[in-house]
Amino acid sequence: MKVPKKISIKEVGPRDGLQNEKARLSTSDKITWINMLSMTGLSYIEITSFVHPKWIPALSDALAVAKSIERKPGVTYAALVPNQKGLERALEGRIDEASVFMSASETHNRKNINKSISETLPILKAVTSEAAKANLTTRAYLSTVFGCPYENDVPLEQIIRISETLFDMEIDELSLGDTIGAANPVQVQIVLEALLKRFPKEKIALHFHDTRGMALANMIAAMDMGITTFDGACGGLGGCPYAPGSSGNAATDDLIYMCAQMGIETGVDLGKLLLAAKWIEEKAGRQLPSRNLQTAKSLDCFS
Amino acid sequence: MKVPKKISIKEVGPRDGLQNEKARLSTSDKITWINMLSMTGLSYIEITSFVHPKWIPALSDALAVAKSIERKPGVTYAALVPNQKGLERALEGRIDEASVFMSASETHNRKNINKSISETLPILKAVTSEAAKANLTTRAYLSTVFGCPYENDVPLEQIIRISETLFDMEIDELSLGDTIGAANPVQVQIVLEALLKRFPKEKIALHFHDTRGMALANMIAAMDMGITTFDGACGGLGGCPYAPGSSGNAATDDLIYMCAQMGIETGVDLGKLLLAAKWIEEKAGRQLPSRNLQTAKSLDCFS
Repeated sequence: MKVPKKISIKEVGPRDGLQNEKARLSTSDKITWINMLSMTGLSYIEITSFVHPKWIPALSDALAVAKSIERKPGVTYAALVPNQKGLERALEGRIDEASVFMSASETHNRKNINKSISETLPILKAVTSEAAKANLTTRAYLSTVFGCPYENDVPLEQIIRISETLFDMEIDELSLGDTIGAANPVQVQIVLEALLKRFPKEKIALHFHDTRGMALANMIAAMDMGITTFDGACGGLGGCPYAPGSSGNAATDDLIYMCAQMGIETGVDLGKLLLAAKWIEEKAGRQLPSRNLQTAKSLDCFS
Repeated sequence: MKVPKKISIKEVGPRDGLQNEKARLSTSDKITWINMLSMTGLSYIEITSFVHPKWIPALSDALAVAKSIERKPGVTYAALVPNQKGLERALEGRIDEASVFMSASETHNRKNINKSISETLPILKAVTSEAAKANLTTRAYLSTVFGCPYENDVPLEQIIRISETLFDMEIDELSLGDTIGAANPVQVQIVLEALLKRFPKEKIALHFHDTRGMALANMIAAMDMGITTFDGACGGLGGCPYAPGSSGNAATDDLIYMCAQMGIETGVDLGKLLLAAKWIEEKAGRQLPSRNLQTAKSLDCFS
């Protein structure tokens, strides 16, 4: 089993987490939380989404958030950018990295973006190209790589073909998404084996959801293949807000604890991250799925 | 990454789960639940403990439970047996396998058993020897292998030395316990590397708690070393009842889902196991940590 010396963590809680929470945070609370995250040692925070507020009302204050957070030197502040209109707002918000997104499966892409895959790709190309001109780095999220809620299995050839098109756009990173939280370690290695023949491992990140408890196991399988970049959300925020206990993103706190125990550097202070997790749990108004958060609470670590 | 074709699961929920739950189940409820578990395809169920009721009041009805469950042919019904007195009751209860137990760390052994390690070993030898004479198979639990709440790290030499003594007693299986739920995949492989040089992998089981979310990741690391026997508790029952959200045993349901996705045979019907998990969750009166249980509930799988 291959274990890296260090990994990079991309904290997506303020975007992928908050966009799915039932509780609506005030702009000021979002800013406070992102500022807390900035002080944990995280080097990357996806702070919001510039998708039209009609689609993600929870993040309609994207520009206000982007303009008001305290920028810690060395931290990359990213945001989701759906199109050129969104990019204009992201640039106004002085975002460091633009994240574009699409699905590997046709049906999910249509349901999520209201466009076919072939209609989506030129839009992403325009955004990444404009973003690069404005000196932003770019990241592409590819959803439903490990399973689609409508089409089930997504053919590997399709994942490869779309990934090739995305890398042709000169994106800096491709984040492979386990949207429904059903990826398993064997599948992770099969998909990575195919992709790593074609693309550099330094440019591939994995984005797991812990819906069925396999997020950390999948990360171990990915590390074994040489992957060193993982998305996570503080506290395991996200997932379906109407489903108590149903997990959202892989909890950054659980990943950091595991890495610390395994001797893998993350640069993140677990104690500070857990304080940020506890803070957002109170705002979310529900028990978050992070095991380390719940264990820390039960051990009275916060008193 | 090595992946086995099939694994054996030892369901310990009725013992290791229930002994730690705050809610007290009636004897009749325990019997009903064990009977449900017997119908899931599980081939091994640890149904109770013959430890003196003074120490584990929740399982004071051990004999009644053992005498009243329906025995499904092919299923091994095991119980915890602390000493010869306990063995007499276990034999009266027609138990198939006697599980003895001790800790790898001196302090935890004293706190848990009220004896030193060297005082404990002859007692275990007497029980396993008498059990074998009565045609019972035997299993030994070694706790705190991956960390002790009092002594922290437990020296590998000590784990090896105690394991040797236990195997000298001709136990059929040694279950290595991550009592505090802090084992990590690297540590699992280090410990196993040392033990597998000395003992057959078929006789070693791993017993994880999911306190920090690493149970499945640890199992992946153990499978990679050739281990194919794992303990689990239906629903992730167990852990500290006064700590909401703090996880107990690795959830059998999560292990079975992962194995099914990875193409590893378990012989267990996930649907039936989830029904048993939902049933015991209602009796426990708290949200259980199994991710698959919570996801199944949120997807309305039970309606």
